[in-house]
Amino acid sequence: MRPLFREIRHNPLLWLLAFVPVVFVTARLKPEAHTLLFVLSVLAIVPLAALLSHATESVAAKTGDAAGGLLNATLGNLTELVIALTALRAGQIMLVKASIAGAIVTNTLFMLGASFLLGGLKHHVQEFNRVSARMQAGLLFLATVALLIPSAMITADSATAAFTQTLSAGLAVLLIVAYALGMLFSLKTHRELFASTAHDDDGESPWPIGLALATLAGVTVLVALVSEVFVESVQKAADAFGMTPAFVGFIVVSLVGGAAEMSSAFSGARKNRLDLSVGIALGSASQIALFVAPALVLLSYFIAPTPMDLQFWPGAVVMVIIATLTAVLVTNSGRSAWFVGVLILMVYLIFAMTLYLMPPRAME
Amino acid sequence: MRPLFREIRHNPLLWLLAFVPVVFVTARLKPEAHTLLFVLSVLAIVPLAALLSHATESVAAKTGDAAGGLLNATLGNLTELVIALTALRAGQIMLVKASIAGAIVTNTLFMLGASFLLGGLKHHVQEFNRVSARMQAGLLFLATVALLIPSAMITADSATAAFTQTLSAGLAVLLIVAYALGMLFSLKTHRELFASTAHDDDGESPWPIGLALATLAGVTVLVALVSEVFVESVQKAADAFGMTPAFVGFIVVSLVGGAAEMSSAFSGARKNRLDLSVGIALGSASQIALFVAPALVLLSYFIAPTPMDLQFWPGAVVMVIIATLTAVLVTNSGRSAWFVGVLILMVYLIFAMTLYLMPPRAME
Amino acid sequence: MRPLFREIRHNPLLWLLAFVPVVFVTARLKPEAHTLLFVLSVLAIVPLAALLSHATESVAAKTGDAAGGLLNATLGNLTELVIALTALRAGQIMLVKASIAGAIVTNTLFMLGASFLLGGLKHHVQEFNRVSARMQAGLLFLATVALLIPSAMITADSATAAFTQTLSAGLAVLLIVAYALGMLFSLKTHRELFASTAHDDDGESPWPIGLALATLAGVTVLVALVSEVFVESVQKAADAFGMTPAFVGFIVVSLVGGAAEMSSAFSGARKNRLDLSVGIALGSASQIALFVAPALVLLSYFIAPTPMDLQFWPGAVVMVIIATLTAVLVTNSGRSAWFVGVLILMVYLIFAMTLYLMPPRAME
Repeated sequence: MRPLFREIRHNPLLWLLAFVPVVFVTARLKPEAHTLLFVLSVLAIVPLAALLSHATESVAAKTGDAAGGLLNATLGNLTELVIALTALRAGQIMLVKASIAGAIVTNTLFMLGASFLLGGLKHHVQEFNRVSARMQAGLLFLATVALLIPSAMITADSATAAFTQTLSAGLAVLLIVAYALGMLFSLKTHRELFASTAHDDDGESPWPIGLALATLAGVTVLVALVSEVFVESVQKAADAFGMTPAFVGFIVVSLVGGAAEMSSAFSGARKNRLDLSVGIALGSASQIALFVAPALVLLSYFIAPTPMDLQFWPGAVVMVIIATLTAVLVTNSGRSAWFVGVLILMVYLIFAMTLYLMPPRAME
Repeated sequence: MRPLFREIRHNPLLWLLAFVPVVFVTARLKPEAHTLLFVLSVLAIVPLAALLSHATESVAAKTGDAAGGLLNATLGNLTELVIALTALRAGQIMLVKASIAGAIVTNTLFMLGASFLLGGLKHHVQEFNRVSARMQAGLLFLATVALLIPSAMITADSATAAFTQTLSAGLAVLLIVAYALGMLFSLKTHRELFASTAHDDDGESPWPIGLALATLAGVTVLVALVSEVFVESVQKAADAFGMTPAFVGFIVVSLVGGAAEMSSAFSGARKNRLDLSVGIALGSASQIALFVAPALVLLSYFIAPTPMDLQFWPGAVVMVIIATLTAVLVTNSGRSAWFVGVLILMVYLIFAMTLYLMPPRAME
Repeated sequence: MRPLFREIRHNPLLWLLAFVPVVFVTARLKPEAHTLLFVLSVLAIVPLAALLSHATESVAAKTGDAAGGLLNATLGNLTELVIALTALRAGQIMLVKASIAGAIVTNTLFMLGASFLLGGLKHHVQEFNRVSARMQAGLLFLATVALLIPSAMITADSATAAFTQTLSAGLAVLLIVAYALGMLFSLKTHRELFASTAHDDDGESPWPIGLALATLAGVTVLVALVSEVFVESVQKAADAFGMTPAFVGFIVVSLVGGAAEMSSAFSGARKNRLDLSVGIALGSASQIALFVAPALVLLSYFIAPTPMDLQFWPGAVVMVIIATLTAVLVTNSGRSAWFVGVLILMVYLIFAMTLYLMPPRAME
C-alpha cells in the first residue's frame, strides 16, 4: 500500500479523495441537497478517475509497451462506462445517449483543442507523427460513421420502433466485433504503428501488479457508488444552475468522466509530445464509438428498464460529425500552432453555448 | 476464336457461361419461376461481365497504356449500364436510381475495403501512390457532389416536379461535358498521372483486335438479353428471399454488375499492386457519377415511360456521401493495413443491414 | 495625385471609373430605370473595388510583408462589407445572408476553380505550398463550421426566435474574438507561415502612404454611395432578367464584390504562383466567416430595422459546406491541373443553375 500513499502525498489532485467519504455521508444525511451532492460527487469522481488512470498505467507497464496507449484510453472510458451504466440502470437513457455523443465531441474537440493551445503557448510550432495520426483519425471517422448510420437512416417516417431496435442491436454486435479485431490489430499484428503513443514515463515508478489490480477493482466500485449519487443529483442540480439536460449529458458528464485522460493529454502537449495527446484523444473517442456505446446497448437488455437504441438526436449527430471531421482535418497536416487550438476550442464553446441556450424540448 | 476458347478453358469463372443458354431456356419454359430465373441470371451475368472485361483489356492493349485503366473501369460499368437501361425501359426508375447510388457505394466501400483486407492479409503494410490516389479521390468527391446537389437542394417544399426535372436534365448535360473533358485529361493531356493503374499484365496474352471487338459486341447483346430476365425476376425473387427493393437495387445489382472489376481489383491487391485496385475502385465510381447516371437521365427521355430525374432518396444521399468521404480519407495516407479494410467493409455491412431491415415504405 | 492618374491610364479596368458619375446622374434623373441602374452600378463598383485593392496594397507595402496577404483579402471584403451594410440598412436581411453565404462559396469555388483552370491551361501541373494551404484550409473549415452551427442546430421545432437571436449574437462575439486572435497569429506570432502569399509585386510601384490612405477613404465612400443604387435596383432588375433573389444574393453580389480579388488571384495563377491564389481565395473566405458575418450581426442591432441572426436557409448551408470541403480536398494534394479547375467550376455552375431555376418560395 505504501506506493499508493506516496502517490497520494505527491499528487495534489488526489487530495480530493477526501471528498469520497464526504459524498457518502452527505448522501445519507441530506439526500435532498441535490446541488451540494452534485458538486461533491464531481469533486470525488475526478481523483478516483486519476487513481484509476495510474493503476491502469501500472498494469500497462507490466503487460508491455503496446498495450499502454490503449489501456491508457480505457481508463477514462472505464469511468464513463461506469457512470453510463449507473444512468442506464436508473432508466435515464437520454442522459446516456447524450454522454456517449458528448464524450466523442469532448475528446476530439476539447481535449485536442486544449492540447494544441497549451502546447502551442509553450512551443512555436509542434510537429507530430502525421502517418499514425492520419491512420487513427481515419479509424475514428469510420468508427463514428458506423455508430451514426442508424440515426442518419432513420427518418421520422420509417422509424418504427422495432426496426430501430433491431438495427441498433445488430450494429452493436458488429461494432464489438470490429473493436475486438481492432485490439488484435493494435496490440498484436501492427503494434508498431501505435508504439509512439504508448509509454508515458512521467518519472512515476509503476506500482506492483498486485496493488495496481486491487486499486483498479476497489476504485471501480467506488466510482460506481459515487456515480449513483452523481446521476441522482445531476438533473436537479442542473435545474438549479439553469443548465439544460442536453448540456449536462454532453458537456458536464463528459468533462467529469474524461478529466484524468485530459490531464495526461495536456501534460504530453506541454512536453512537446503531441503524439501522446493526439493518441489519447483520438484513441479514446474511437473506443467510445466502438466499445462503450455498443456495450451499453447490449447491456441495456439486461439492466435497463427498457432497451437502449442507437438513434441520436439530430443535433448530436451534427456535432459528432463536425467533431470527427475536425479531428481528421487538424491532424492531417501533422503540425499545430496555438491558433489551431483556439479555433477548435471555439467550435467546442459554440456547441456548449448552443446546448446551454437550447430550449429543453428541442432535443427530443 | 481459338484464344477465346483457350481463355474459357483456363478460367473456371467462365465455365459459368454454361448458364447463359440455361437462362434463356428456363425463361421460355418456366416464365413464372422467378426465384430460379433470378439465381440463373446472376450466374450468367458474372461470366459475361468477366468476358467483357477481358475483351476490353485486349482492346486497351492495342490502344496504348493510358487508356487501359479507364477502359478497364468502363467494362464493369458497361454491364451496369446495360442492366440499368433494361430496368429503365421496364419503367423501374426506383431500381435504376438505387443501382446508381449502390454502384458508387459498392465500388468505394466493398471493392476498396475488400482489396485492403485481402491485400493486408498477405502483406503487412501496403503502400500506394498517394499523389495519384488523392487526385482520383478528389475527382470522385467532386463528381459525386455534383451528382447529389439536386437531391440536397430539393426540400419537400420546393420540389415542384418541373423544377426537379429541368435541373436534372441540365445537370446531366454538364456532367457529360465534364466526363468528356475528363477523358481528354486522363487519356491525352495528363495521361502520365494515370499511367500506374493502366497495364494489367496478368501474363494473359491479349486477343487479336478483331476477336476482341466481336466479343465486346456479342457479349454486350447477351448481357442485355440476360438483364431482361434479371430485371423481370429480381423484384419477385427479392420478395421470396425477404429482401427489400432498396437492398436489391443497392447491393445485389451492384455486386452482380461489378463482379468482373472486383476480381481485377482483388487480384491486384493480392499482388501488392494496390495502385491498380484503388484506380479501378475510384475510377469506376467516378464514371458512374459522371457518365452512367447522366447518360441514363438523357436516354430516359427516349426509352423510358417517364423521364428519370436525379433526385435520390435521402438515405441513399447519406450513404453515397459517407462512401465518398471514406474513400477520400482512407486513400489520404497512401498506406493500408488489414484493419482499415475491416472497418471499411463494416461500414458497407451496416449499410446492407440497414437496407435489409428497412421497412419498404421508408425509401420513397 | 499623379501616381493615381498614371495607374488609371495604364489599367483599362479603371477606365470603367467613368461609370461612377454616370450612375449618380442616372439615379437622379431616371430613378425608375432599375435595370439600367443595376448594370451601371455593377460597372461602377468593379473599378472602385480594384482601386481599393491597389490602395490597400500600397498601405500593405508600407506596413510590411506579413500584413500584405491579409490586407489584400480585406480589400475585396471591404467592398462586400459596404454593400452588405447598405442592404442591412435597407432592411434586406435575406439579401445580406445570401451574400455572406455566396461570398464564401464564390471565393472557394469560383475563385479557386478559375485560378486552377487558368493556371493549368498555361502550366502542365502546378505545385503550391501544401503545408500552408492545408493550414489555411483547416482554418477555413473551422471558421465556416462555427458560422453554420446555429443553422445546423436549429430545427423547425426548436427555433424560438429568442433562442436563435441570442445564439447568433453570442456566436458573433466569439467569432470576432477568434478573428482578433487570428490577426495576432498571422501578423505577429506566426507571420512566417503566411509570408509566401504576401508580396504581390506586379512591378507596380506602391503609392505614397498619404495618397493610399486618402484613396482608401474616398473610394470607400464612393462604394457606399454606388452600393445604395445597386441595392435599390438589384431586386427589380433581377425580376426583369428572370433571376431569383437567391441567385442575385449568392452569385451576382458575390461576383461583383469579389471582382478585384479575383483579378489578383487569376493573375497569380497565370504566373504559376498558385500560393498567392490559394492564399487570397481561402483567406478571403475565412475572413467573411470570422469577420464580415459577425460584424454585420452586431452592427444590425444599431443600423437595421430588425436585428439579423445567423440562421441560413438549408440549401445555403449545404452549399457552403460543400464549398469548404472542396477547398480542403483540392488543396490537400498541393498539386493542381486544369481538370481539377474544371470540376470545381462545374460544382459552382451547378449551384448557380440550381439557384437560377429554384422557385423563389423555396429558400425561405
